[in-house]
Amino acid sequence: MATALASHLNAITLGAPLALDSGKVLADVTLAYETYGELDAEKSNAILICHALTGDQFVAKTHPLTGKPGWWERMVGPGKPIDTDRFHVICANVIGSCLGSTGPASMGPDGKPYGMSFPVITIRDMVRAQVALLDQLGIGSLHAVVGGSMGGMQALSFAANFPGRTDRVLAIATTARHSAQNIAFHEVGRQAIMADPDWKGGDYYAAEGNGPEKGLSVARMAAHITYLSEAGLTDKFGRRLQDREEKSFGFDADFQVESYLRYQGLAFTTRFDANSYLYITRAMDYFDLAEEHGGLLADAFRACGDTRFCVVSFDTDWLYPTAESRNVVHALNAVAAPVSFVELSAPYGHDSFLLECPALDRVIKGFVG
Amino acid sequence: MATALASHLNAITLGAPLALDSGKVLADVTLAYETYGELDAEKSNAILICHALTGDQFVAKTHPLTGKPGWWERMVGPGKPIDTDRFHVICANVIGSCLGSTGPASMGPDGKPYGMSFPVITIRDMVRAQVALLDQLGIGSLHAVVGGSMGGMQALSFAANFPGRTDRVLAIATTARHSAQNIAFHEVGRQAIMADPDWKGGDYYAAEGNGPEKGLSVARMAAHITYLSEAGLTDKFGRRLQDREEKSFGFDADFQVESYLRYQGLAFTTRFDANSYLYITRAMDYFDLAEEHGGLLADAFRACGDTRFCVVSFDTDWLYPTAESRNVVHALNAVAAPVSFVELSAPYGHDSFLLECPALDRVIKGFVG
Repeated sequence: MATALASHLNAITLGAPLALDSGKVLADVTLAYETYGELDAEKSNAILICHALTGDQFVAKTHPLTGKPGWWERMVGPGKPIDTDRFHVICANVIGSCLGSTGPASMGPDGKPYGMSFPVITIRDMVRAQVALLDQLGIGSLHAVVGGSMGGMQALSFAANFPGRTDRVLAIATTARHSAQNIAFHEVGRQAIMADPDWKGGDYYAAEGNGPEKGLSVARMAAHITYLSEAGLTDKFGRRLQDREEKSFGFDADFQVESYLRYQGLAFTTRFDANSYLYITRAMDYFDLAEEHGGLLADAFRACGDTRFCVVSFDTDWLYPTAESRNVVHALNAVAAPVSFVELSAPYGHDSFLLECPALDRVIKGFVG
Repeated sequence: MATALASHLNAITLGAPLALDSGKVLADVTLAYETYGELDAEKSNAILICHALTGDQFVAKTHPLTGKPGWWERMVGPGKPIDTDRFHVICANVIGSCLGSTGPASMGPDGKPYGMSFPVITIRDMVRAQVALLDQLGIGSLHAVVGGSMGGMQALSFAANFPGRTDRVLAIATTARHSAQNIAFHEVGRQAIMADPDWKGGDYYAAEGNGPEKGLSVARMAAHITYLSEAGLTDKFGRRLQDREEKSFGFDADFQVESYLRYQGLAFTTRFDANSYLYITRAMDYFDLAEEHGGLLADAFRACGDTRFCVVSFDTDWLYPTAESRNVVHALNAVAAPVSFVELSAPYGHDSFLLECPALDRVIKGFVG
């Protein structure tokens, strides 16, 4: 999938190998990326948007595999809160992913797909690759780095590890470290994938069929529940039945919520690589910004100078609850960083940052300026 | 597994076929059960304990497969809150389960294991079987029916469908209906089992190997997370590493929480049948006590007379949060049923009813009398 598509994607090959947190080095790194709006002559109006676990560079363009609108069309575009009439928006597919950037489905040095010989990467490694991209594009300092969920982790990591490279950091529905519960849900997903015999130890690219679709689908289903609030699920589905008047007394998808989850699982397998899911969830589980900086989160931000931060959480987000954002804000306060923090009320749980939430539009528009 | 063990278990065959909610009839129903303490001459001191999804009749006796202590030893026994010096405690393995009672692993009328030809059962069907057992034991009215989680559903169903058969109902950490989120988590587990090629459409009993162990293990892992609180997981595991000083930059169980979950998943497969897991989760998802009684939960309890109720929830239980218990209590209030209600504070989430919670001991001891 990724290979056939790759030649149609905008991409750049990094000029130097990428030194990874694991100690390994990744050579011939390709980053697929999209831009929106014009870069000004001073190269001062660039905004880097970092995508979430299963996101991609198609922020505000039709997705080439699904044909669906970009994942943040409501936020990014001409006249939108992140206004592409004024800003040059860049979004790169993270390394480890599967929409054109180097990942486990890419060809390794031996001319075969990496599979599980791909090195384990971290959130910081993803950010390093994006900074290398900015270097090659000649963009010294960003107007802002913006991200939700795993994108927010990258935004925080960018600020901490590349101080001076951005004026603003906007971290939405995110955390400075993965909790035990976060790791637990990801581990369920990984075990579901690895339990699928079609996974074949990650070496399924040349095999018949489409890889461990069933395992990947179960992984997506489990994760999807964590993206929604209990109240949101109740509002959307409750105990309503799917296309029937009575329970079937069988194992079909009697309930709408079952049908919805099965669809979400299945649809995901048509656009995402199972090994990428393993590698990216691992990177998220490894993420602990404090640990990276000697154990004290405040130390991660000590060199940030007058970079301005905005931290946003949602009251119904139980994946990265407000307490995690508050943790980040306390650390920023401890180093007297300029930070504004808001917990927004929205019914959709973690996914609120992707959905209709006018208050978020206003916060982002105001902060990006 | 179940078959080899069955001959060693205390069991009774019901005298009549069991008419099920599905409209089907289950013939030759065996109920495996254990008792604790003596039944008095008037048969007036019996307490029925209903077990949870993966529980069994070994409330306060060593489990015959795992060799572990009974699942509620802390609550049931001589001098314990449910005092077997005074009460005759009965606990039966629910139909659909796999510790001696008739379930999908049992032999069907054709001399082969039922597998997926076992009829879909409901919580009320489970209760019907237990009432039939009480009838055969000559026990007209119980001192109390007691249960946590799915056991609590049975206790509520018992009260609603067999009014006059118990003086007291104690429903702990439970709900009168499964929410969309509850159904969603169960559906993930079912899909994980059914995705395992060793499931073979449920017809794995005669096959080599131990059935869909990998799928069942993933199902258990996902469910297990819902039994614990986020804070409990953080306290117990946090981000601590398992038997290593540094992250491995691989896919081993680096984190203690990963190792713990893998162990829980694997251990579960040695004592539980995958098809039973499908059937029992389905029964729980179908549970909606209001729907069964014309749509109004209060109507379920209208015939309960002076049966006394005690409803207990835990503040950290996000599987069946306090709001679900409150829903039950409001319905009981609406029919002026005698009910006491308490939300206990305990750090362990849903599993609190099984763990060290002295306040629960006091509530149960006081209510059972």
